[in-house]
Amino acid sequence: MYVVKSPLSDADLKAVADALQGALVDLIDLSLVAKQVHWNVVGPRFRSIHLQLDEVVDSARLHSDAVAERASTLGVSPDGRAATVAAKSGIGATPEGWVKDTDAVKTLVDALGAVITRMRERVATTADPDPVSQDILIGITADLEKHHWMFQAENG
Amino acid sequence: MYVVKSPLSDADLKAVADALQGALVDLIDLSLVAKQVHWNVVGPRFRSIHLQLDEVVDSARLHSDAVAERASTLGVSPDGRAATVAAKSGIGATPEGWVKDTDAVKTLVDALGAVITRMRERVATTADPDPVSQDILIGITADLEKHHWMFQAENG
Amino acid sequence: MYVVKSPLSDADLKAVADALQGALVDLIDLSLVAKQVHWNVVGPRFRSIHLQLDEVVDSARLHSDAVAERASTLGVSPDGRAATVAAKSGIGATPEGWVKDTDAVKTLVDALGAVITRMRERVATTADPDPVSQDILIGITADLEKHHWMFQAENG
Amino acid sequence: MYVVKSPLSDADLKAVADALQGALVDLIDLSLVAKQVHWNVVGPRFRSIHLQLDEVVDSARLHSDAVAERASTLGVSPDGRAATVAAKSGIGATPEGWVKDTDAVKTLVDALGAVITRMRERVATTADPDPVSQDILIGITADLEKHHWMFQAENG
Amino acid sequence: MYVVKSPLSDADLKAVADALQGALVDLIDLSLVAKQVHWNVVGPRFRSIHLQLDEVVDSARLHSDAVAERASTLGVSPDGRAATVAAKSGIGATPEGWVKDTDAVKTLVDALGAVITRMRERVATTADPDPVSQDILIGITADLEKHHWMFQAENG
Amino acid sequence: MYVVKSPLSDADLKAVADALQGALVDLIDLSLVAKQVHWNVVGPRFRSIHLQLDEVVDSARLHSDAVAERASTLGVSPDGRAATVAAKSGIGATPEGWVKDTDAVKTLVDALGAVITRMRERVATTADPDPVSQDILIGITADLEKHHWMFQAENG
Amino acid sequence: MYVVKSPLSDADLKAVADALQGALVDLIDLSLVAKQVHWNVVGPRFRSIHLQLDEVVDSARLHSDAVAERASTLGVSPDGRAATVAAKSGIGATPEGWVKDTDAVKTLVDALGAVITRMRERVATTADPDPVSQDILIGITADLEKHHWMFQAENG
Amino acid sequence: MYVVKSPLSDADLKAVADALQGALVDLIDLSLVAKQVHWNVVGPRFRSIHLQLDEVVDSARLHSDAVAERASTLGVSPDGRAATVAAKSGIGATPEGWVKDTDAVKTLVDALGAVITRMRERVATTADPDPVSQDILIGITADLEKHHWMFQAENG
Amino acid sequence: MYVVKSPLSDADLKAVADALQGALVDLIDLSLVAKQVHWNVVGPRFRSIHLQLDEVVDSARLHSDAVAERASTLGVSPDGRAATVAAKSGIGATPEGWVKDTDAVKTLVDALGAVITRMRERVATTADPDPVSQDILIGITADLEKHHWMFQAENG
Amino acid sequence: MYVVKSPLSDADLKAVADALQGALVDLIDLSLVAKQVHWNVVGPRFRSIHLQLDEVVDSARLHSDAVAERASTLGVSPDGRAATVAAKSGIGATPEGWVKDTDAVKTLVDALGAVITRMRERVATTADPDPVSQDILIGITADLEKHHWMFQAENG
Amino acid sequence: MYVVKSPLSDADLKAVADALQGALVDLIDLSLVAKQVHWNVVGPRFRSIHLQLDEVVDSARLHSDAVAERASTLGVSPDGRAATVAAKSGIGATPEGWVKDTDAVKTLVDALGAVITRMRERVATTADPDPVSQDILIGITADLEKHHWMFQAENG
Amino acid sequence: MYVVKSPLSDADLKAVADALQGALVDLIDLSLVAKQVHWNVVGPRFRSIHLQLDEVVDSARLHSDAVAERASTLGVSPDGRAATVAAKSGIGATPEGWVKDTDAVKTLVDALGAVITRMRERVATTADPDPVSQDILIGITADLEKHHWMFQAENG
Repeated sequence: MYVVKSPLSDADLKAVADALQGALVDLIDLSLVAKQVHWNVVGPRFRSIHLQLDEVVDSARLHSDAVAERASTLGVSPDGRAATVAAKSGIGATPEGWVKDTDAVKTLVDALGAVITRMRERVATTADPDPVSQDILIGITADLEKHHWMFQAENG
Repeated sequence: MYVVKSPLSDADLKAVADALQGALVDLIDLSLVAKQVHWNVVGPRFRSIHLQLDEVVDSARLHSDAVAERASTLGVSPDGRAATVAAKSGIGATPEGWVKDTDAVKTLVDALGAVITRMRERVATTADPDPVSQDILIGITADLEKHHWMFQAENG
Repeated sequence: MYVVKSPLSDADLKAVADALQGALVDLIDLSLVAKQVHWNVVGPRFRSIHLQLDEVVDSARLHSDAVAERASTLGVSPDGRAATVAAKSGIGATPEGWVKDTDAVKTLVDALGAVITRMRERVATTADPDPVSQDILIGITADLEKHHWMFQAENG
Repeated sequence: MYVVKSPLSDADLKAVADALQGALVDLIDLSLVAKQVHWNVVGPRFRSIHLQLDEVVDSARLHSDAVAERASTLGVSPDGRAATVAAKSGIGATPEGWVKDTDAVKTLVDALGAVITRMRERVATTADPDPVSQDILIGITADLEKHHWMFQAENG
Repeated sequence: MYVVKSPLSDADLKAVADALQGALVDLIDLSLVAKQVHWNVVGPRFRSIHLQLDEVVDSARLHSDAVAERASTLGVSPDGRAATVAAKSGIGATPEGWVKDTDAVKTLVDALGAVITRMRERVATTADPDPVSQDILIGITADLEKHHWMFQAENG
Repeated sequence: MYVVKSPLSDADLKAVADALQGALVDLIDLSLVAKQVHWNVVGPRFRSIHLQLDEVVDSARLHSDAVAERASTLGVSPDGRAATVAAKSGIGATPEGWVKDTDAVKTLVDALGAVITRMRERVATTADPDPVSQDILIGITADLEKHHWMFQAENG
Repeated sequence: MYVVKSPLSDADLKAVADALQGALVDLIDLSLVAKQVHWNVVGPRFRSIHLQLDEVVDSARLHSDAVAERASTLGVSPDGRAATVAAKSGIGATPEGWVKDTDAVKTLVDALGAVITRMRERVATTADPDPVSQDILIGITADLEKHHWMFQAENG
Repeated sequence: MYVVKSPLSDADLKAVADALQGALVDLIDLSLVAKQVHWNVVGPRFRSIHLQLDEVVDSARLHSDAVAERASTLGVSPDGRAATVAAKSGIGATPEGWVKDTDAVKTLVDALGAVITRMRERVATTADPDPVSQDILIGITADLEKHHWMFQAENG
Repeated sequence: MYVVKSPLSDADLKAVADALQGALVDLIDLSLVAKQVHWNVVGPRFRSIHLQLDEVVDSARLHSDAVAERASTLGVSPDGRAATVAAKSGIGATPEGWVKDTDAVKTLVDALGAVITRMRERVATTADPDPVSQDILIGITADLEKHHWMFQAENG
Repeated sequence: MYVVKSPLSDADLKAVADALQGALVDLIDLSLVAKQVHWNVVGPRFRSIHLQLDEVVDSARLHSDAVAERASTLGVSPDGRAATVAAKSGIGATPEGWVKDTDAVKTLVDALGAVITRMRERVATTADPDPVSQDILIGITADLEKHHWMFQAENG
Repeated sequence: MYVVKSPLSDADLKAVADALQGALVDLIDLSLVAKQVHWNVVGPRFRSIHLQLDEVVDSARLHSDAVAERASTLGVSPDGRAATVAAKSGIGATPEGWVKDTDAVKTLVDALGAVITRMRERVATTADPDPVSQDILIGITADLEKHHWMFQAENG
Repeated sequence: MYVVKSPLSDADLKAVADALQGALVDLIDLSLVAKQVHWNVVGPRFRSIHLQLDEVVDSARLHSDAVAERASTLGVSPDGRAATVAAKSGIGATPEGWVKDTDAVKTLVDALGAVITRMRERVATTADPDPVSQDILIGITADLEKHHWMFQAENG
């Protein structure tokens, strides 16, 4: 059926496709985790953290769209279904129920940290096969690391 | 720990909480399914369906936020984590890979139909215990049914 | 040919369809009557009434679109053609030619009053068969009654 | 009663008034026909035609307002009531019920074609008596012909 | 003098008028109390609470306008004068002088709680006599309860 | 507890604080009176006066916020509670019920006149102790006097 | 010195230059007269006429800029100095002092009438020598005639 | 007829009225002179000066409206008619015809200088009788002096 | 294949089609020439001319779209390909490399002059066959002549 | 004459200059080809492809400006004249006349494919001599590849 | 060389020039200090203080531009170079490195307090020589004192 | 105290930290120098250069914020205090007093040139240790080089 003639060799495409699919799953899960905490956070910093979390959600949604469409652009079908996200995400389990604001900050520091580590690996593995995809991943990493700083600074 | 004194009796609260939690899961999954098809659709109607799907995503995201925050408002912790969505969604499995535009329309007609049936039940069960929550669910149902019409009309 | 599987039973659908079709005709005619007076009003309150009438036109156009699309959503073909409007509108005949501002206000008070009476009946008849359609009609009624007050207050 | 001293002679005014009143009726009917099809169109091009029709509605509403206010400006009372539109429109009857997208395009090609033919006659008859009114009619004709092209191109 | 022919019976009108007038007084006082605390709050959460309070003020002002104009729409003169508000508000006395941020949150939790209890009674008493007014009160209650959650979560 | 080291001497601060607190009460009451008439005005100038009154409300709300925050800035707790406004306002009693448009204009001319007289005194008394506060009061006076002119001109 | 090679013959240029210079003077004076009445109008229609006059000012300013720049475009130096306007305007003298709203409307009807008569002559005299300039004058005339209708309708 | 009870004594009012009327005439003339040069400037700095002049026009129009409405506010009829401007302006005669860019800058430096000298006198004479009017004149002077600097710097 | 039934006779259509196709080529080339100079201009007026040239580009792009779509509207396929533009443009050759600002101005004066001469001929030849197309060409000519003036004034 | 001291060595500059000049020609031609098809496309997908093509035009125009200004920044005169584009573009010949929508999609797939192949080579050749220019070319390539995907998906 | 003829006497100019130059240095340093803390703050109030500091930066940048341009307006060259700021600022040394949120608030309270004290002296010394400059300084002082209150209230 | 776990090794972090700190100081000084010249420039190109300089200021402020926050993101405290800027900036001394426009252009060419040279070194030294930081520095360099071209072209 529908086949895109990719500008990359098969081997290069495989490496890039894995990086993009992995990033997609991490970023969708990040958006869900951040929303989960956005709704469940309580404590004296409620309003401030509640708003800060929605900025993470906005970033994660934009970035997940960018990597998924980059995969399609290279002729690779992206998979962002709930079951795939639940199974493959690099973010650890988020506990259910209300979250104290201090714990909310910690949850985000951990979640962002986990995603960033994997994103940096993806930046490295895509450098040679496709600098165009790498550039997209670099931009996303820069933004995630900025959010990471801000949540770490909250606990400073 | 943190306890909100709900304006509802315990029995009423239980019924409303179930309705809101069910709606939350369905709406998050709808946003993920619509994005999945948004990225994977191919065929002569690609651009038109691709754009139409993002309008469903926008609706589903806004509505999921509204029901989750309504749950928090009533003192009930909402659960929108990926694993919960994967396990509890009322939408059937979405196949992986590229989707022909005609099948994409059908996928949305089915997904919206499944969610609407459950939303109408939630409208009925919340009428007595909490007309405020019901009013929110009615507004969401009206919007989902409008999207449902538009995808059905595509196949007319 | 094209058939939408309505979420309503046949009997319920019939009642709701009649209400929506009736509302559509009334609202289109209201938009035409308000524009007619908008163009023909004269007198010392010309500018004020001329502007106020365009706010009624805007409301009536938005509401007519909402009820027509609600009918389509339920699988009922809406009919907003000129001949249908001319034959079925609940608003009495509007005289031709220039209209003194005082008479213009009276024309609108009467037109809005006629439509509101019928809208309140539609709110009642749709309550059981379809609370979603009813909610749309309630919102429209609230807005029409506000316009009604403002024109009555002009004659106070 | 209220009489505007027109800048035109009686004979010139008669010719211009007929042209403007005719244009008014055609343009209001065009807006109603385009909305009717906007609500009733079905088929694989639903979304695209549905949106395109609303652009015709917007144009027709703006243009009908312009010609009606131009008539008032010349001291001639415009008549845009439903019964007048139903009786005097130059657009042929629009069938009731759902419309396949291919037929919807054809309906608009015919409706726009009928209005354009009459508008070009009005451009010719107003040239001498009132170049100001003619300029308004020329601008409207240009816009209607552009819509006409776009619907014809849909069938190309 | 000026009399609006209400769409409601006298008994129904009496019940709805009492609900709307009561809501008006509560909402104006809520706007004044929230502003009072907005100006007087001190403490490490100053900026966050200061901003959150202005969102309550905006809501309360919009809602008070809606219920007052709804009363006028039904032919009932609304009374929002300072003396009336001071005498009839359902919100307890606000102490003068600077307010610690923790106390500011508590003041709002109490004020919103008091108004919500009365609003829910008004939703119940207006359901039969006037579903249109009830729908307005339901929307206001949903919004007040959301603010209530947010201030409670601050103390979580 | 919380004490701001004011840039003014105690005597100067006392004079300025009285001026600001007096202005606050007058401006809040002006916003309430203007809204009260906004809702209750009837007569042929209804729409025009109704809109003009909301411009006074907007001005009065902005100005009351400015003077209250100026008091806080100087370390003086502002008092804008309903009971304080009801007791201390310089505006005479506003009668309840519907108001003819001519009387509405008169009510505003009187209310604005009363506030302006007191504002001019405050401009004079703050000149020496605090030219910064005086500059704020001068700007408010200029705006109130402009509204005063416009309502007087309505009765010209 | 600076000379533009005009696309028109000398005779044609003379005719067009006179028309544009005449229009410039009339339009500047119209803007000054409308502002004069905007500031001096009094009476029950004060606000409505006050606002309507500023719409004339906006139109006149835009149109005067268009004709002056058209003159420059053709290589003819435009003259819009106060003394020239005072000496050459086609608008009769405007009395000093306050103006009752009824007289204000009459002043504008007369001023617009005087300018329109001269503009229609300019439309005729520029048709052959320069249809480009004529098109600009036609557009201005249409707008002035619309304002003329609106002030006449005020007196209807 | 129409009389505003001014907040100023007769002697004070006379001094302030003279200042405002003088400022009005100067500012209208400044707007006309700046537009005249805007249309007639030529030379290598054409575009830069042409744009800079429109910023003076915008300032002068806003300021003339402010002082005229301030006069009306104090009960003094403002006079901004062309003949009055031609007779009373403090700006020297502007030569007709094309203006070299260097001369254009000089014309504005002179015109702004003349107006500023008179504005500073008005600031001095209004200080005691009406600090509210003085504050308006101070703000205008600041803005005119800024324009003055910018044109002087062009010749630096 | 695809044939639009043109509202014009064959002879009229031929004349109008030639005019529109000629205008299209000239306008596309004008946009390319203006961009070329925009990138290559140097000298003390760099920034001013650089910005002014982009305004010509914006105009030329909008106008080329208008005439191309007008051709399509009349059933005539427009040709705006690079080779056609290179072969048929009425603008003389533009030298390669850096351009001194004074030469840049001269290049534009010449290019605009060449296009305007041809546009005026097109205005004349389309007057009888199609006043609708003529009106579009008149508007474009007015705008090009305004740009022509501004570049000539730069050299004044 | 005018010489920029480039931050690059002569050899590096030569390589980068060739890449930028080649990209400029391709991107200008892409904008012309996309506009050509935008005007000439016909068929049932007319509106959708017509709009999609304008998004390519917008991209191509922005990108051509970026690479041309980058060349100027490095001291290399860019050449974007029609004859250069006609002679040097990497896009194959575009046939004249109407284009069926299916062929239109194919034309764009081919044109984008040709440009992308050359852009990827330019990304490679600029990496060492100038990572700043390379980064610009990478961003352009990512965008062109996204357009490429969307047109391929249309044919899926 | 370039000399502006100041509207002030030499003695007055000297006093005003010193005040403006002093204000310039303080305000630039305030913007640098607030940015420094904006980047280095850590602790549970990180986000709130981080945002609040950028509002101080915005204010300080706007105000520094206003006083520098006011100096230029009076013919006095402003000096805002880094070395001058480092040498002449009235703000005490800011320690390097991370700053706890509580200390960040204290740093701003002290910095704003130091600047305000000097600004109030400048308000006093400019009153007689130049009320126009004084009015600018008064407005800046009002804004700085409002920021001062808000940081003090954070520590309340 | 507060320590961020950096994603970089200590050696890599040191190199990147030095690059970012150096860039921060240069960019802050660039913003101060550009403002200094913005206020002090005189001559026939005053307005053009004055505006162009503010575009440099805007760029420099945005870029300095980006590099400072990037340093914080990596766990390195940025130092942007006035004394640090005065001591460490790579831009040569800026003379005090008025600046002729020609000298102003030269000052910026030199300042931008100095910063660009150092930025290109930072791009090189960060490539291996942190491609994310490098990407930010590349984007800044591209923008600074564009400003550099524009000021050089002014002197062309």
